Amino acid sequence: MTGAFGHGEVSEIESAEASVPLELVDAWWRAANYLSVGQIYLIDDALLERPLEPGDIKPRLLGHWGTSPGLSFVYAHLNRVIVERGTPTLYVCGPGHGGPAMVANTWLDGTYSELFPAVSADGAGMQRLFRQFSFPGGIPSHAAPETPGSINEGGELGYSLMHAFGAALDNPGLVVACVIGDGEAETGPLNASWRAHAFLNPLTDGAVLPILHLNGFKIASPTLLARIPETELVDFLRGNGYEPMLVTGGFDGEDPMLVHERMASAMDVAFDRFEQIRADAADGAFTEEAPHWPCIVLRTPKGWTGPGIVDGVQVEGTFHSHQVPLEGVRENPEHLALLEAWLRSYRPDELFDSEGRPIAELDALRPRGDLRMSANPRANGGIERPLRLPPTEEFAVESTDADGTRGATGEATRVFGSWLAALLRDNPDDVRLFGPDEVLSNRLGAVFDVTERAWAGELHPLDEHLSRDGRVIEALSEHLMQGLLEGYLLTGRHGLITSYEAFIHIVDSMFNQHAKWLESAKEVPWRGDVASLNYLLSSHVWRQDHNGFSHQDPGFLNVVVNKQAEIVRVYLPPDANTLLATMRHVFGTRNRVNVVVAGKQPQQQWLSHDEAVAHVAAGLGVWAWAGNEPGFDAADPAASVPDVVIACAGDVPTIEAVAAAQLLRDRMPHLAVRLVNIVDLMRLQDPSHHPHGLRDAQFDAIFTPGVPVIFAFHGYASLVHELAYPRASHEQLHVRGFIEKGTTTTPFDMLHLNDLDRYRLALDVLHRVPGLAERPGVAEIADEWHAAREAARAYAYEHGEDPEWITGWRFRAG
Amino acid sequence: MTGAFGHGEVSEIESAEASVPLELVDAWWRAANYLSVGQIYLIDDALLERPLEPGDIKPRLLGHWGTSPGLSFVYAHLNRVIVERGTPTLYVCGPGHGGPAMVANTWLDGTYSELFPAVSADGAGMQRLFRQFSFPGGIPSHAAPETPGSINEGGELGYSLMHAFGAALDNPGLVVACVIGDGEAETGPLNASWRAHAFLNPLTDGAVLPILHLNGFKIASPTLLARIPETELVDFLRGNGYEPMLVTGGFDGEDPMLVHERMASAMDVAFDRFEQIRADAADGAFTEEAPHWPCIVLRTPKGWTGPGIVDGVQVEGTFHSHQVPLEGVRENPEHLALLEAWLRSYRPDELFDSEGRPIAELDALRPRGDLRMSANPRANGGIERPLRLPPTEEFAVESTDADGTRGATGEATRVFGSWLAALLRDNPDDVRLFGPDEVLSNRLGAVFDVTERAWAGELHPLDEHLSRDGRVIEALSEHLMQGLLEGYLLTGRHGLITSYEAFIHIVDSMFNQHAKWLESAKEVPWRGDVASLNYLLSSHVWRQDHNGFSHQDPGFLNVVVNKQAEIVRVYLPPDANTLLATMRHVFGTRNRVNVVVAGKQPQQQWLSHDEAVAHVAAGLGVWAWAGNEPGFDAADPAASVPDVVIACAGDVPTIEAVAAAQLLRDRMPHLAVRLVNIVDLMRLQDPSHHPHGLRDAQFDAIFTPGVPVIFAFHGYASLVHELAYPRASHEQLHVRGFIEKGTTTTPFDMLHLNDLDRYRLALDVLHRVPGLAERPGVAEIADEWHAAREAARAYAYEHGEDPEWITGWRFRAG
Repeated sequence: MTGAFGHGEVSEIESAEASVPLELVDAWWRAANYLSVGQIYLIDDALLERPLEPGDIKPRLLGHWGTSPGLSFVYAHLNRVIVERGTPTLYVCGPGHGGPAMVANTWLDGTYSELFPAVSADGAGMQRLFRQFSFPGGIPSHAAPETPGSINEGGELGYSLMHAFGAALDNPGLVVACVIGDGEAETGPLNASWRAHAFLNPLTDGAVLPILHLNGFKIASPTLLARIPETELVDFLRGNGYEPMLVTGGFDGEDPMLVHERMASAMDVAFDRFEQIRADAADGAFTEEAPHWPCIVLRTPKGWTGPGIVDGVQVEGTFHSHQVPLEGVRENPEHLALLEAWLRSYRPDELFDSEGRPIAELDALRPRGDLRMSANPRANGGIERPLRLPPTEEFAVESTDADGTRGATGEATRVFGSWLAALLRDNPDDVRLFGPDEVLSNRLGAVFDVTERAWAGELHPLDEHLSRDGRVIEALSEHLMQGLLEGYLLTGRHGLITSYEAFIHIVDSMFNQHAKWLESAKEVPWRGDVASLNYLLSSHVWRQDHNGFSHQDPGFLNVVVNKQAEIVRVYLPPDANTLLATMRHVFGTRNRVNVVVAGKQPQQQWLSHDEAVAHVAAGLGVWAWAGNEPGFDAADPAASVPDVVIACAGDVPTIEAVAAAQLLRDRMPHLAVRLVNIVDLMRLQDPSHHPHGLRDAQFDAIFTPGVPVIFAFHGYASLVHELAYPRASHEQLHVRGFIEKGTTTTPFDMLHLNDLDRYRLALDVLHRVPGLAERPGVAEIADEWHAAREAARAYAYEHGEDPEWITGWRFRAG
Repeated sequence: MTGAFGHGEVSEIESAEASVPLELVDAWWRAANYLSVGQIYLIDDALLERPLEPGDIKPRLLGHWGTSPGLSFVYAHLNRVIVERGTPTLYVCGPGHGGPAMVANTWLDGTYSELFPAVSADGAGMQRLFRQFSFPGGIPSHAAPETPGSINEGGELGYSLMHAFGAALDNPGLVVACVIGDGEAETGPLNASWRAHAFLNPLTDGAVLPILHLNGFKIASPTLLARIPETELVDFLRGNGYEPMLVTGGFDGEDPMLVHERMASAMDVAFDRFEQIRADAADGAFTEEAPHWPCIVLRTPKGWTGPGIVDGVQVEGTFHSHQVPLEGVRENPEHLALLEAWLRSYRPDELFDSEGRPIAELDALRPRGDLRMSANPRANGGIERPLRLPPTEEFAVESTDADGTRGATGEATRVFGSWLAALLRDNPDDVRLFGPDEVLSNRLGAVFDVTERAWAGELHPLDEHLSRDGRVIEALSEHLMQGLLEGYLLTGRHGLITSYEAFIHIVDSMFNQHAKWLESAKEVPWRGDVASLNYLLSSHVWRQDHNGFSHQDPGFLNVVVNKQAEIVRVYLPPDANTLLATMRHVFGTRNRVNVVVAGKQPQQQWLSHDEAVAHVAAGLGVWAWAGNEPGFDAADPAASVPDVVIACAGDVPTIEAVAAAQLLRDRMPHLAVRLVNIVDLMRLQDPSHHPHGLRDAQFDAIFTPGVPVIFAFHGYASLVHELAYPRASHEQLHVRGFIEKGTTTTPFDMLHLNDLDRYRLALDVLHRVPGLAERPGVAEIADEWHAAREAARAYAYEHGEDPEWITGWRFRAG
């Protein structure tokens, strides 16, 4: 059955020969609806064993009824399909605040009581289930980490469909059903997700079943997609590559059994179609063209089966049913009566036995064990297999020139790219690379030696690095890339997202929500670990001189450090080997968000492979070779005290810091300069705020209180102050970072404009070391450096590039 | 002509009777292409007066050729339409890095030389034009504030179509042509924009002409929309409510004149259709149903007319033409020859006279004066009309109870909503309210007394507050709301966006890019002022207790303060009258981003109307009535020194701070407590960092160095440290803010979890005031407050709501 099913043709679909009677599906649905209403309203008398009294009603009525009946309707129908076919299926719940329905169904599944034994599968458990909902110390009003079977929080909307596609990748045989609310369907990220089937391989990936649920309204107004002609809606979905099926019903009091019949037919067609697509692909059809995937449009009234008219206002089928259709139930006897009638309309005595257990007949609609959507191991955490992490030695670059001097040239991301290729090669089905078409421009092209970009669309003879089964996914949507990776990680696999640093702000809110998910998930005992979400931000602020101001923004780090310390890590590796060591480390971590910032341009290399590994393990350290500090002892940095510390974090600031130290060494050989490089930014924070924080004694041994610290920082200077403000030496910290002064210029001039070039740093030292500026000859040196700084700038403006002696600057050992 | 034009039917469209010959359109196009290539490559010999030499080539080859010929093709054709019809038209350039083409066309328009006289309309000016492109101190490689006629930066992609629709609002008769690159078409925000015609009224708004430019590739791989069957593409656009016309050509060496004919026909149909839609609407058609707007799909080769095969690799028509099709031109004589041949292929001697001026014949394609798209006053800044700002007095609420005690109950956003309604009433065509369907839930519903939501779609009898000409725009996409407002502001009008605080992070990057636009625009002398971008963030972190952790995030403020101080302002009004005074102020400002955070819940009111106005003007102040400081003199706050300062910023923290001061006053009447409230957060920064920064002397007079300051802050505590770290009293600042500890709970418990409740603050005072904790009786008070804190929490967990004596707490004067 490969045709399209728009324009009301659904009623012509033949009924499947259902072995589960639809009456049972209806019973499940009524039970779930009863449990949803109960969660919103009841604190006592869960089973309606006596007429409702005001004291049975929660003092604060919270929750969202409007979307609940639709979500449970889909749940019941998916259970039928799973029971009949045995197809492993996930349920991604997109609509906001769908918590009552999702929790109700997992309780009916039995999973909830297994995972939360206090909420037992009987009347006492039901009472607890009701009480905990939107109650202090209880559960939120949307699907969340606490909800069994969930990989998508229904708080901030837009990410359900991308999570669904991410879950389907490399999960052949799995069906990910994704209910998209018509509110969520208005968001940008959701709209960017429709076409994600362009990366799906029907043989090696699972299938996604989008179920667009049009209940007509968002919070207080109609939704865009609910108010367009049906032909336009069908065009929209066909235009996104789907074969849509329309299931409409429940309006004007229509018997729900008729809607059950339509939905069951559509579900059967969809699941048949998935099997057909796989079979066709096995026969080679996919080499020719991409399949057309089915999707379902479910159009039912908002708040279906809820109160119709309340206080003269139509509630069912309008936005008035969005939250609690009946307000003030404790105070208003009429509303109390309406609530009781509403609850009894589901005929609870037919659904639950005298002890409050779901009736035995519902067993027939309950998939067994892990086939329950709420118990699917994919959805409840747990890493499928730890990554095989290739050793880094063979990928490391020389950090020294032929004469043994540090500062050989290398390109950090290119070096990492070779290791990343080995990682992809050694883990062929559970790690992926995601990016907004920047893999090549960020110089990670080595991955194309071992794999290609995934592409289910048309292939042309001149195409490069495109194939049906590539491991790299690229589309020009940071949202989509992040969302696919999140779905992939939350279902037990591993991955990396790359982006230009400035544009990763596009997913600030997605990062926030994922970090919050991880923060909450660690409080949920039955949720397994997941692999960390790893970012590699290249093409960073200091090398976007030529692209101009709009490409220059290091502020993602500020967003990141606001999340819980147990979750977030920020790394600023200063060269290729340090990037290698950092990335090998982060790929082995769990339950974190690791943000790594590293440039792609050729630049000086500082550390050998082994030095880099040790540096990443330490997180920061003194680079004695770059400084000029008599008597410095690496084993006991507190044994000597320099005149000044030059600290640096970030690859470009590190070059400038090392160069500044060299300027000072050349001209002021008696000045004791200590150079400190920070790769793990959270070392700056104190250990009470972050687990990576250095203890004060260690911090002070390195930064030596009382001594001025000139700090060259990759991001906004205030971030260093924010992290280090409780330190004893904080008053001595003089930080230079990006000050939001950009233009179209050269790398050196970019630093000049932001007062972070080597001359500025060296001049800062002259200014900050007490008494230094007054010493004989120092004023002349200052003048000379000022002049050199301005001359370098003038050269850049005249010639369009930095003077040779800037870009070609070479480190000399002291 | 109201049919659809898909499936290659475009060739059947009758040719318009063009009074401008298409040969001239082609000449303009060739001239623009020549100027685009010149900008990317040439530093000398702009007019090819002698054979190219290596020294004529820029040392650093930057820029993006791939998109340029398509952009110029559209520009030339729009000029033809404008010349023939006189229709005011804007050109919104979506594709990334389209700078060379846009600048080239504005120079041909003559506008560039008028605005930048040094870049004159002759050979010398052309030389400067070429040199400045992507050159230090020059112009960026994408349309930017420096580009005449631009309202959309081609840096971060995704916002062109929403900017176009925003520009069209309330601009009847204007056509906004918007070129959307097929790369940009993959982004979420762009996908959310297609349906923005749902808010367009053909009588009172302008028209938008989306031109989807499929050149097939983004940076290094094919685009999604370029690789789907044409029927699917047509379905997609029809499914988004458009009548698409397909213009395809230029492949396999096809004569461009044939493509010109197709494009001219499509343009004529589109502009005819706009007139027809207006005429139909004037006849009442719009009351029945929304019009179907035309759009154009332009499919031409990437890098069209550029080098075909280079070093054996196909460049024209592939992603290899994305940036510079010929690399290493200085070093490679073969590439130098290819470049010269490429430039000469445009026959520059037929396009520019001997002095380098565009030939006189091109005059016929140059619209006059303001009709030039580059000179359209809508696009180059300038506020059409300052707002009429209603006085606030009549909307102010009583801040005192009947007995004269401060702390009467009021709802800040509801009060502001009444004033906002007056603002909308008094400015009926140049101010709008945008939000993600939260106007009602944020209690701004009073606006619906004077207007409705705009809605061009189907209307139902039960709809509320929907109409064809509403001034409120709501869709569940923060991206779309922000983008429409940006387009509206940048074309000279005024507006406000409202959002839940946590979810405004969705537009972090859009805020960033808009702030950067404003930062750059102030350096462009001919750009006029624009009205400030105003945010009202309600449903904030401290009142999302019931919605749980995913709804709790105050981090947008951190993103905001990183932008340039001249641009950003943050206001945290503590009550309704202060919100009123704040909003009236911000609506009168220009060229800024104003972020206002204020809750919607009923709470204590503190300031009378006049006090609030004075408080907002001062930005912060001592609330002597809330403290307990003998001898305090408002005229000279430094005249007395308290034992402790309790500072607060944010409405909920202010309640807790005032309550903490009351606890202390009751129990320790001899402790001198000063209460400071901050409404303008940037007052905390020093004046060298922010123009609103208090001078140190003023700061010290209020915060009294040496005295502990217990600071109750709305956001993350580190933000206060970040802003205030250079202050003398910084070491005494003990800040409590959101510490990313959330759950589903009650307002009091939310504060408890984050250690920001009144008891915690009072206990902080006991702990921080030297010697206080040791005084007789104080340990008992501390024990009592600890117990009260835990008892309040226990009550909340037991009863599901805060104890009466918490929510019902009443201020008592000292």
